[in-house]
Amino acid sequence: MRVGLLGAGRIGNVHAQAISAHPDSELVAVSDAFEKNAQALAKTYGCEVRSSDQIIADSSIDAVLIATSTDTHSDLIEAAAAAGKAVLCEKPVDLSLERATACLSAVGDKASGIMIGFNRRFDPSFGALKAAIDAGEIGKTELLSITSFDPAPPPVEYIKVSGGLFRDMMIHDFDMANFIMGETPVSVSAVGTSVVDPAIGEAGDVDTAAVTLTYADGRIAVIKNSRRAVYGYDQRVEVLGSEGLLQAQNMLENTVVKSTAAGVVSAKPTYFFLERYMPAYKAEWAAFVRAAQAKSDMPVNLHDGVAALAMAEAATRSVKSGRPVAMTEIPGISGRGAAA
Amino acid sequence: MRVGLLGAGRIGNVHAQAISAHPDSELVAVSDAFEKNAQALAKTYGCEVRSSDQIIADSSIDAVLIATSTDTHSDLIEAAAAAGKAVLCEKPVDLSLERATACLSAVGDKASGIMIGFNRRFDPSFGALKAAIDAGEIGKTELLSITSFDPAPPPVEYIKVSGGLFRDMMIHDFDMANFIMGETPVSVSAVGTSVVDPAIGEAGDVDTAAVTLTYADGRIAVIKNSRRAVYGYDQRVEVLGSEGLLQAQNMLENTVVKSTAAGVVSAKPTYFFLERYMPAYKAEWAAFVRAAQAKSDMPVNLHDGVAALAMAEAATRSVKSGRPVAMTEIPGISGRGAAA
Amino acid sequence: MRVGLLGAGRIGNVHAQAISAHPDSELVAVSDAFEKNAQALAKTYGCEVRSSDQIIADSSIDAVLIATSTDTHSDLIEAAAAAGKAVLCEKPVDLSLERATACLSAVGDKASGIMIGFNRRFDPSFGALKAAIDAGEIGKTELLSITSFDPAPPPVEYIKVSGGLFRDMMIHDFDMANFIMGETPVSVSAVGTSVVDPAIGEAGDVDTAAVTLTYADGRIAVIKNSRRAVYGYDQRVEVLGSEGLLQAQNMLENTVVKSTAAGVVSAKPTYFFLERYMPAYKAEWAAFVRAAQAKSDMPVNLHDGVAALAMAEAATRSVKSGRPVAMTEIPGISGRGAAA
Amino acid sequence: MRVGLLGAGRIGNVHAQAISAHPDSELVAVSDAFEKNAQALAKTYGCEVRSSDQIIADSSIDAVLIATSTDTHSDLIEAAAAAGKAVLCEKPVDLSLERATACLSAVGDKASGIMIGFNRRFDPSFGALKAAIDAGEIGKTELLSITSFDPAPPPVEYIKVSGGLFRDMMIHDFDMANFIMGETPVSVSAVGTSVVDPAIGEAGDVDTAAVTLTYADGRIAVIKNSRRAVYGYDQRVEVLGSEGLLQAQNMLENTVVKSTAAGVVSAKPTYFFLERYMPAYKAEWAAFVRAAQAKSDMPVNLHDGVAALAMAEAATRSVKSGRPVAMTEIPGISGRGAAA
Repeated sequence: MRVGLLGAGRIGNVHAQAISAHPDSELVAVSDAFEKNAQALAKTYGCEVRSSDQIIADSSIDAVLIATSTDTHSDLIEAAAAAGKAVLCEKPVDLSLERATACLSAVGDKASGIMIGFNRRFDPSFGALKAAIDAGEIGKTELLSITSFDPAPPPVEYIKVSGGLFRDMMIHDFDMANFIMGETPVSVSAVGTSVVDPAIGEAGDVDTAAVTLTYADGRIAVIKNSRRAVYGYDQRVEVLGSEGLLQAQNMLENTVVKSTAAGVVSAKPTYFFLERYMPAYKAEWAAFVRAAQAKSDMPVNLHDGVAALAMAEAATRSVKSGRPVAMTEIPGISGRGAAA
Repeated sequence: MRVGLLGAGRIGNVHAQAISAHPDSELVAVSDAFEKNAQALAKTYGCEVRSSDQIIADSSIDAVLIATSTDTHSDLIEAAAAAGKAVLCEKPVDLSLERATACLSAVGDKASGIMIGFNRRFDPSFGALKAAIDAGEIGKTELLSITSFDPAPPPVEYIKVSGGLFRDMMIHDFDMANFIMGETPVSVSAVGTSVVDPAIGEAGDVDTAAVTLTYADGRIAVIKNSRRAVYGYDQRVEVLGSEGLLQAQNMLENTVVKSTAAGVVSAKPTYFFLERYMPAYKAEWAAFVRAAQAKSDMPVNLHDGVAALAMAEAATRSVKSGRPVAMTEIPGISGRGAAA
Repeated sequence: MRVGLLGAGRIGNVHAQAISAHPDSELVAVSDAFEKNAQALAKTYGCEVRSSDQIIADSSIDAVLIATSTDTHSDLIEAAAAAGKAVLCEKPVDLSLERATACLSAVGDKASGIMIGFNRRFDPSFGALKAAIDAGEIGKTELLSITSFDPAPPPVEYIKVSGGLFRDMMIHDFDMANFIMGETPVSVSAVGTSVVDPAIGEAGDVDTAAVTLTYADGRIAVIKNSRRAVYGYDQRVEVLGSEGLLQAQNMLENTVVKSTAAGVVSAKPTYFFLERYMPAYKAEWAAFVRAAQAKSDMPVNLHDGVAALAMAEAATRSVKSGRPVAMTEIPGISGRGAAA
Repeated sequence: MRVGLLGAGRIGNVHAQAISAHPDSELVAVSDAFEKNAQALAKTYGCEVRSSDQIIADSSIDAVLIATSTDTHSDLIEAAAAAGKAVLCEKPVDLSLERATACLSAVGDKASGIMIGFNRRFDPSFGALKAAIDAGEIGKTELLSITSFDPAPPPVEYIKVSGGLFRDMMIHDFDMANFIMGETPVSVSAVGTSVVDPAIGEAGDVDTAAVTLTYADGRIAVIKNSRRAVYGYDQRVEVLGSEGLLQAQNMLENTVVKSTAAGVVSAKPTYFFLERYMPAYKAEWAAFVRAAQAKSDMPVNLHDGVAALAMAEAATRSVKSGRPVAMTEIPGISGRGAAA
């Protein structure tokens, strides 16, 4: 598979590595708004620098990976889909739910073939947890908890353009909930605060939040986010079922345990998403190549991307209004989404 | 200290053991609505069987422990307080918040000297977690999570008279939140469902619930309850602070780990509250004796008992109304409670 | 069961507590070389102070617990056995293997009814490990490892009269090996050193040792001892079998885990044997009462006491000679001991 | 750095991957006794197939990695060293200590520049443990334990040509002991048995062994090996020091924990050396490139390779003779080896 990479920033480089390392994919060309970025990446991986338009127009290129700035995602998805490419686009589809649903309409029945980069679904531990649920190992699922803390908050300048914690950070957890529960919720109830940094609150966002999701069949999910966990990247999932509990715990930097008079000290969780999710990015790419080659539906697609964004919209409204928001209140969303 | 025990049921027997084992307390008399219960306990611990009235009227008795049925708690607290006894009463103060606040009024400034049996505050692990917070080991607390699952649901007949999950089971977790956070919340938002057993739902109660508490200073707490965790009694507390995370994990039945081709198997959590909290019951009694001897305020008192009950009332209303409930909406509660 | 306690030192007090707490045993009398010790214990537990001879001669006393200094054990065992008492004697039987084997001869066929206080067999975790082996959960056992470190070395003055690390400390581990492996070894190979404290070496003892045991059927056991583990009392057992591995790990002081920028810190192991083995002492006493009432063989008896002492003798010789010592070289020991 | 790979078997393929992935090294040519192996590897990594002689004779090749059968190692080391190549040779140097010491003599002062593939030194957890020791975090080291179990025994046909457990398997642990302790031991005492498979015993080897090493300064090390741990590849190191204990525990397949009525189940250790040590192979190659570029001594070199082999020789003799073997008894070895 010949691949064009749109976007040569930090996450573009992560994907370039996965594309190059895969036996069935070849990185052919890269584009970036900052040509220097594209040149540096092209040099490392031995590919050409082109414009995004040129890459999409090149009929010898089978697939594009969209890792550009969020505001360009929907346009590029539409263009690449129209050009018949296999598409893997980074999350979120857009900060605007309206634009994302328009994109969904525009691509029509190609939506299931457009993969959205919810990489955590491909983490070996979350994958094993999901497989255990699907195998019935804990019976019927009843209560899901997702803990997702970043090691340190981004600069307030980033916060201002990020779309807010729910669209930028918790969107991963909304998708994880959809992945684990196998359907989207009927209501979203959120509280948020800026106890980590008042400047984040002044910028109109929250840095700490707890969200409760309810499901049509009575199940419940709770998601907790914080922009700061000084001990590292804390990414845990826990599901109670009728026959047991499944927990996916953190990966640690190493397995050394030191016992002294001061206590018993283990290694910290791997520091951030590049360390923690590198295997997930590789597995994500492999899943994309597999589905593209088989011309089958993508394991996580544009419908899922829009569903997670709609939940972020609902959470944002819930914090503002101080009450639960039904998914039916969200325009263009029918209440039970694509994840089912 | 000469002690009279009111109530010789399961929990009365637990307390009898703690009273007898303590070097500074002596179990003098026991009462029970079922005299056979009282006689059995009296035989084991070598004390007299009397009526509750006789015990309260006996000026040679210094302290009474109230472990009778919940509907008698407030009356006995008032009578024992009026008789000048040191009082330790099992939770809850009453199923009716109205009756409990009336009791609080009735005892007046003796309320701080009446201990309520929130035994979990005396669990060694929760105690060590609280001490670490107070020592500033994780900086300022921001986000609290309490997981509290029973191993198996009680009979539906019990559910019907229990006051419901929030007053019967989560009340312990409300008190734990007050203990850890050092104050009562400003709002309570609850969802509940009966995914464990529809019959519990038909009886008007929930068996699985998630509650979000918000605090005046922006902090957040999340409590999860389930009536069924088939692997045992799951009792965990986790607090994120500005400088770290504290977790109190489950006690296990033993420390054996078995690794076979089928996986790596550890022991389950201790099965239920008698196993898990026996050290806590002993430490609770020791704290009571200490405070009674010093004539100082009880470490957890009638104010705390009413505060937790008010939170249960708010959670019950929140589930019914489908919206967050401000603590100021709860009659007779001023919003920030005794825990501060 | 009416019980006389010989010896009111630290370990005597531990046993007094277990005797008093057991529903079927009553502490009637206590003796001690230092009468003040006996008086203090008698006051706490409400029993009489007598001489050891008086206790043994009192036909109303059913059982004696011998917790006196080691050099008196064999004499008291012989006297109490002759008087028809049920006997529980602290380890070791004697520092002299010769004296211990003479005691074994003296009591004749009563040996199986004399319990030796190898309390660790009654630790819940070691017991669960042994039960798992007996249930075939790891198939055939092949390789045993015992790690046994004290938190801090005793005074050199104590070392000098202790009989040395093998008789005083590792004797527990020799018995644990006999318990786990179900038979005594055919050879003992030991190395020892005084890296903890050269003064211990100057006193003729070692403070750190590794011993390898071999068994008639080819199995192997390794025991490691150190007089100093600054992080606490380290007591672990690990057995590899044809179908898996069993590990009994340390009990921790509590279950709190603290994650900060400095690492992830858990509680230390419980500090020393009183904390770690209190449940074992209680279970040991219960097992003794049960066997005495049933007039059945004791679960760990005088044969086992002599077998462990013979292994200590072999280890001592091995360190001195720098070569493995066959158990057949040890006078009066037939190579495969009582544990089988 | 232009690299020639000698040997295209399983381990050759592991190295080819590391060589290709490193930014400063290029795989130029590969040789193998079975040309099909070489061709397959050459196709995957885009390099030429040549003979070993051709590769060594090619002055444009900077480095050779020797991953051929053990009996060719010494010849190829000598030839490559004579040709001025940087050399990384898989362990062991030879099955014959005599041949290995002759090789050491033959290469003269180039020995320190020839790296031996003791990959475990580059495992992140063992590396972190060693760094903690070097940083003084547990004070002075006193007692080392290495547990090293393979998941399943190799075919008996392999056993027969392997040189035996000590030269084939425990040689890694001998080098680990040298790495951790910072010097070679003064004596080796070994016991071995064939409890896993009697056929291994009939082939003249052992499948389960325990070895005790003593050091000039009194320290002790214990190594345990088994050819079979049905739960996976068990690779642990534990060091007691004057100020604490360091443990490097197993890496697990994932972080999922499942709690059910049957117990609490975690993932097993990664199954075998390819999974467990892939990061170590990459780090090993990076260390080789770094040292070769700097023309500095290799971090683990031919001296270390011979020292570990001498310890395997001593262990083999100890099992046969049934007594400890002093390292001074081993011809050509001076007692304290290169690791110091």
